[in-house]
Parts: sequence; C-alpha cells; structure tokens
Amino acid sequence: LDYNTHWVAKRLSGIGFTVVGASMVPDDKGEIVEAVRRALSKADLVIITGGLGPTPGDVTIEALAEALNQNLILNEEALRMVERRYMDLYELGHVREPGAGGERAKMALLPEGGKPVFNEVGVAPGVVVKKNGKLIVALPGVPSEMMYLLEKVIPLLEKPEAMYQSVEDFIDEGDESLVALALKEVMNELPDVFIKTYPSGFGGKVRMKVIASTKARGREDAEAKLRKAITLLKEKVAKRKAEAPS
Amino acid sequence: LDYNTHWVAKRLSGIGFTVVGASMVPDDKGEIVEAVRRALSKADLVIITGGLGPTPGDVTIEALAEALNQNLILNEEALRMVERRYMDLYELGHVREPGAGGERAKMALLPEGGKPVFNEVGVAPGVVVKKNGKLIVALPGVPSEMMYLLEKVIPLLEKPEAMYQSVEDFIDEGDESLVALALKEVMNELPDVFIKTYPSGFGGKVRMKVIASTKARGREDAEAKLRKAITLLKEKVAKRKAEAPS
Repeated sequence: LDYNTHWVAKRLSGIGFTVVGASMVPDDKGEIVEAVRRALSKADLVIITGGLGPTPGDVTIEALAEALNQNLILNEEALRMVERRYMDLYELGHVREPGAGGERAKMALLPEGGKPVFNEVGVAPGVVVKKNGKLIVALPGVPSEMMYLLEKVIPLLEKPEAMYQSVEDFIDEGDESLVALALKEVMNELPDVFIKTYPSGFGGKVRMKVIASTKARGREDAEAKLRKAITLLKEKVAKRKAEAPS
Repeated sequence: LDYNTHWVAKRLSGIGFTVVGASMVPDDKGEIVEAVRRALSKADLVIITGGLGPTPGDVTIEALAEALNQNLILNEEALRMVERRYMDLYELGHVREPGAGGERAKMALLPEGGKPVFNEVGVAPGVVVKKNGKLIVALPGVPSEMMYLLEKVIPLLEKPEAMYQSVEDFIDEGDESLVALALKEVMNELPDVFIKTYPSGFGGKVRMKVIASTKARGREDAEAKLRKAITLLKEKVAKRKAEAPS
C-alpha cells in the first residue's frame, strides 16, 4: 500500500524537501485527477507513483494530462525508450515479440511538453512535466523501478532555497500535559520555531522526545536557534515542575 | 509517517471493508478539516489518527468539529476518563498531579454528540461521531494506543452489506503488454469483476500475479465468479501466445 510513499518522503526530506502531504487513491482516473490538482495547490513538487503500465487499470498518465489540462500525445523519445526495452527483453528471451506496438505504445503517450525518463529496470518510462513553475514527476509503482527512477530524477529537482532544519532532543519529563503549557509559551515567544513532543509511553523513566524545526538557509543558524528554543522549553518545564506539588 | 495508515487499512480490509483512500496531512487545522470533508465525500467510515493530546500541535478534534459543523463541548464522560487515567498515573508515580485541569481538560473537549472511548494505554480518549449515516473515528497517533482503541471501536462498526471478495492466482506469462489485451476483453465481458496484474520482474520464469475482485454478499458466489474470470483470462492469454511469433 504505502511503501513507495514512505520511501519517497524519506528520501526527499533527507535532502531538505518538506513533505506537505501524501494521498493514496484507487486506480480511478477521476480520483487521480483530483488528487494531483489538490497536491499542486499545496506543493511545488508532486511525485506520483504507479499506474504507468500497459494494462487497462493503468490510468495515471491520462489522469495527469487531464489534471494539467494538457493533451496526451505520442512522445517519440518515450516510444524509442519503450522499443529499446522490448528489444532488450526480446533478445533476453523474456517476451515473444520486440517492438512497441499495440498496448505497449500506451507507455509512450505523455502529456504535451512532458519528458520521459528511461526505465532500464522495467519498461514504462518515468514522466517529468513542468507547469507554472511546478514540477510533476510520475514514477512506476514497482518499488525497484520507482527507486531507480527516483534517483535519476533527483538531480533534475531544484532544491528549495530555504529548507526546514530540525534538531532532536529529550526532556526527562513524562507528563505531556505539563510540557504542553511550556511549549505553548515557547512557540508564542519564538513564532518561527515549530516544536512537537512525543512521549515514549508511561513510567518513571519515560522521557519526552522533542523535535524542533524551523525554515532557514543554513544549518548552523537554524541549529543555534533551535537549541535556544529547546533550552527555553527545558527551563520552562523545570519551572513548572518546581511549582507543582511533589 | 504511515505505520498507522498501513495498520488501519490492513485490519479493516481484512474484515471486509474496502479502503477507498488515505491521506496524510500536516498538523494544521485547515488541512485536517479539508481532508476530513474530502474523506466523508468518498467513504461511509472515516478513521483519523493522531493529534488528540494536550499539546498546541494537537488540533485534530477541533478540526473534526469544524469539518462536521458541530460545536466543541466539554464531554463529561470524556472528562471522567481523563481524570481516571491521571489518577492511575499519579498513583503509579508517573505524573506529579492527579486531576484533569489545565491543558489536560482539552482531551475531554468533543464535537457535540461525539462519544469518547476509554484509552487505558494512554490518556486521550478516542472519539466516535455519527453524522448523516456516516461514522467518523478519531484515534491517538501513538501506535500502541491506536491499535488498542481500534480493537475497541471495531465491534461498533456496521459491517458493509456487500463486501469485496478477492482471489489471487498466477499466469505463467511475463509479458504484461500481452496480458493487457486479454485483460481488457475479460473486463469488458465481465464488467463487475476488477482484475489487476502485477509482474514480479523480468526473466524466463517470471509469472504474472493476478488479483481479481468483485463486490458480493457471500464468499462462495464471489469465488466461483472470480475463478471463472481468471480461467477466461488464462484462455485468452494462451490464445494470444499461440498467435504470437515464437
């Protein structure tokens, strides 16, 4: 169900992108169109996985063209890629016929202006489309093909100018409701810092995991700011602890 | 990121529910409102996880009330649940104060008409709301709490009358494009059967995994119909194979 989502989110956030959302929808053209449009309204980069193959259920590229109000056209470069892959597979004895005719040609239909990305793990090319300053990337659903093509696409992505930087820390306090009050004050005092706490359970030794993040150009500045925020949080928690009955 | 989504989808589809979609959105009230409304437009049952705690980032219940156009009110039953949990935790020495005051009371604010579900793994009660024949369930984000409360909620769910039944099979054919044509014919002949094929890779021994599903009241009828569909698919694939140059 969601291996691909997890992989893409982790890989891209690891190089500084902020994942603002993810959706899984059925193999239904209307639902994919809706999901792509919604994603484009939230993000500058949209990655879609699955539905690039030759079977009737593979409707992603049709849906993508519709979502972008673009025509679906036979892309000659994509057609050569599909032909090349079927020739390889034919020579290896894995398919009975070479060529990109019949249902196979469907994999060379791209939204106008789209660029194919050669898929030498599978057959269906990845598709990259630029529109209104946004980038949409369609990758195959088979994980090995998706991972391979994602690596080929990453160098094409414009890195975000200001990236989210985050630091992790721990507070030796298991009562999230006590931390909550302190957290509210810190986030009011430092509005550009976002802090989320995660209790690891309950028990005398339970600590609160603190993840603080902020948008910044460089890692050093961000870390200094985030360390300050966490120190402030710890002070406020300690103060509340001291005030609470023991 | 998506452990909870995966768990809920698998657990519910295992008892006959059809998962029609999933979304992950940031801890942002507006985005949660939008996602809940969208989900309600697609499904009869909506499960939300995360954001039930006392910290400022926990905005799920507020968002849920807004999505349903309902007021957020202090639910006395929920308040007693929160009090009971903090008394337990106090007696265990895990928090410094009992009671459900201050930030803790936030966990007892429910959409009007909502029912709390006692959370004896964590503190924040789960929330079940019925509206216009639809059921919305909010569960905590900590996996152990989510799993525990999901099991308590499942007996409350109305099972769908007609459930999707599916069978799996394999075709000894590695060329998805050849299968695609046969598949199109089968799905035209049997419009209430949905079939999806998944190639396991490339190679002489590669088989195509076939998953066929249909909506039906009973398992036997469905299986007979699906077996027939797969047999038809196999015949059509064999015919195309025989016609293809070798």
